[in-house]
Amino acid sequence: MFPESINNLIAEFEKLPGIGHKTAVRLAFHILESNDTVAKQFATALIDAKSKIKFCEKCYNLSENNVCNICSNSKRDTSVICVVENVKDVVAMEKTHEFKGIYHVLHGNISPMNNISADDIKIKELIKRLADESVKEVIIATNPTIEGETTAMYIARLIKTIPEIKVTRIAHGIPVGGDLEYTDEITLIKAMENRRDM
Amino acid sequence: MFPESINNLIAEFEKLPGIGHKTAVRLAFHILESNDTVAKQFATALIDAKSKIKFCEKCYNLSENNVCNICSNSKRDTSVICVVENVKDVVAMEKTHEFKGIYHVLHGNISPMNNISADDIKIKELIKRLADESVKEVIIATNPTIEGETTAMYIARLIKTIPEIKVTRIAHGIPVGGDLEYTDEITLIKAMENRRDM
Repeated sequence: MFPESINNLIAEFEKLPGIGHKTAVRLAFHILESNDTVAKQFATALIDAKSKIKFCEKCYNLSENNVCNICSNSKRDTSVICVVENVKDVVAMEKTHEFKGIYHVLHGNISPMNNISADDIKIKELIKRLADESVKEVIIATNPTIEGETTAMYIARLIKTIPEIKVTRIAHGIPVGGDLEYTDEITLIKAMENRRDM
Repeated sequence: MFPESINNLIAEFEKLPGIGHKTAVRLAFHILESNDTVAKQFATALIDAKSKIKFCEKCYNLSENNVCNICSNSKRDTSVICVVENVKDVVAMEKTHEFKGIYHVLHGNISPMNNISADDIKIKELIKRLADESVKEVIIATNPTIEGETTAMYIARLIKTIPEIKVTRIAHGIPVGGDLEYTDEITLIKAMENRRDM
């Protein structure tokens, strides 16, 4: 119905997750109705992000340099490594401004259902870091899902064979501001199990 | 929090209408996680659409050529012109596969509230076409909004001064499958006014 180059642009928008045909048409027309620099800046940003971004050699976080900003920051405590599933988890953790250690990004979880084994995610790389760097504690912060727990247990077992490295798991329980009444059973069980003296 | 080139890409996505920060982050990561061709194709489509698309010299529809596919189609009846507000209305009308005439896209409505006068939209161009081409009927299909009605009346008054050109307005009434109970008053009034013998 539209000229070919508009159809192409609509098709590209439609490839994005959660963008249906109508939204894609609306976005394409937004580009057409904006001035030339909008399309050019957008195109440049796409190419740039894809070409400049690589994985940090140490922690596999996204980075424009060989070593990411966090690993190369001399103020961070390199003796504590927080293990997370993906890059967005690093961002979530950094937003708290509380954690002063460094990270290790697994880029996934062990998931036999999806044919993802321990070798497909960055576990070997973590074990190698523990041998090379002087690490005191590994905090496993994978998500409290079946796959996340499996991965956490697998890594914990590997690390326990290395003397003098403590391995911990972030706590699961009722979220702050949450309500017992609306908390699911598994979370409640976790919250009871992990109760503390007060 | 992210490297600069990712922040740039997120910012570009955020500029799109209806895309908030969280969606922008999700879309940017989709691009980063896809292979290189995805970003390249997307960038090319953006630049292409913007550089290739121009307005049809005759009807001001979007086109890759000087004259659009509809105006240059010899099977179309050039004696009937349907006047619409914008390019998307052409597409909506074409989807019916019923209208065999040609179009004229106004690119807006007369709207004193938004400082848009008759000179800001393609009305002069329409009147010029009526002088140059042999047109028998002009169907005004602007939307049934205050601005659309104002524009329709303005154009109708201009055309009525030209002899031998009929000017009509598309019908407004209860949509097919609609329900009297849920139809707004203005539509009901229009539907009653436009009642037909049967």
